[in-house]
Amino acid sequence: MTLYMHPVSTASRPVRLFIAEKKIPIAEKVVDLMTGEHYKDEYTAINPSRMVPTLVDGDFRLTESAAILRFLASEAKAPEYPSDNRKRAKVDEALDWFNTQFYRDFAYGLLYPQVFPNHKRPTDEHQTGTIKWGLDKAKVWFAVLDKDIIGSQQYVTGDQISIADYFGACIATAGELIGCTYEGFPNVQRWLGNVKKLPSWPTINEVMYGFASSMKGKDFVNL
Amino acid sequence: MTLYMHPVSTASRPVRLFIAEKKIPIAEKVVDLMTGEHYKDEYTAINPSRMVPTLVDGDFRLTESAAILRFLASEAKAPEYPSDNRKRAKVDEALDWFNTQFYRDFAYGLLYPQVFPNHKRPTDEHQTGTIKWGLDKAKVWFAVLDKDIIGSQQYVTGDQISIADYFGACIATAGELIGCTYEGFPNVQRWLGNVKKLPSWPTINEVMYGFASSMKGKDFVNL
Repeated sequence: MTLYMHPVSTASRPVRLFIAEKKIPIAEKVVDLMTGEHYKDEYTAINPSRMVPTLVDGDFRLTESAAILRFLASEAKAPEYPSDNRKRAKVDEALDWFNTQFYRDFAYGLLYPQVFPNHKRPTDEHQTGTIKWGLDKAKVWFAVLDKDIIGSQQYVTGDQISIADYFGACIATAGELIGCTYEGFPNVQRWLGNVKKLPSWPTINEVMYGFASSMKGKDFVNL
Repeated sequence: MTLYMHPVSTASRPVRLFIAEKKIPIAEKVVDLMTGEHYKDEYTAINPSRMVPTLVDGDFRLTESAAILRFLASEAKAPEYPSDNRKRAKVDEALDWFNTQFYRDFAYGLLYPQVFPNHKRPTDEHQTGTIKWGLDKAKVWFAVLDKDIIGSQQYVTGDQISIADYFGACIATAGELIGCTYEGFPNVQRWLGNVKKLPSWPTINEVMYGFASSMKGKDFVNL
């Protein structure tokens, strides 16, 4: 099996982290988003949506980060994706919660327009409005995550880590690109601390942190 | 079990449709989004994210439309969510594909800002820019859906209907609110025709079509 990915990609990081932690034998191939390699014919033949990651095993091709996590965890019969229907449903719920409103408003609404040129809106008023809209909504989701989802738990679905923590923590920590410290969300801070204890966290996120360092001192709107 | 829902909600419709088709004994409770009932204490205690649908069975509470579909189909051992890992992964991939970029750009980027007052952007330039951004991206996703995902197949993951078709068709048909006919996407039209053959389609979508009729003649930007 081969994972097509980029080390800075928010969607690639949780999959790479899970593979590293579980020591699953999967080769990696970098798709250089910075030079637009994902728009070239070779890659669009693999993933017409032009996104990373994609898992390839012969004729079997699987896109969508959360779907890849579900698949790999199912294959490994990992406790991070329980087989009991109700427990599994709570992990699916958390994965989908992160993948919808949270990802949209926090990453696509607040972070990406400030960090990636192709996400920047064409006029100042549109750009400023987009960022304010994303910020207002992101604050609502962080408050729900902090108070209602995590609360006094160690992880999002209880006191055991699941693939939803892998996924959600990688989206939340993308905020470090614009200097988010998650002040005012103490349970989120504690939860991220828990996920960051995974032994592979530093290696997998090294390039992302390098990218974040390169932007230090820039004036970003953040939480 | 009780499903808290609203009949016009894009996320409620696929769950109600699946329940109706599979004749699963679940009571329904309307949460009146139009009067802001989802922001009141009684409902936020059930779903702090203030969204519908939510499935409740005693202490077990499940939010997120796609997670509820996965759960109900798993409980029913329905062929619409295969138990084979690779086949299931392809359904998960399609569910997540619809739930992420497609839902974001088409519904939250193009439809909702034109239809719902609380999604309208505060200035004209921001509103116009948002709609153009949503339209441009939505066209890309419809092209991928038409050519690469559906192609010559009857349904999104092959020639058998899956819960991803329930989910995706309900998001795509939300476009009828702004007069989308999906011209130029013949495979999407054919696929929607297939899903609309489900016997419960007219009943479940009656209120949505009533809402669409009430807005006929308005000048919307659409596909």
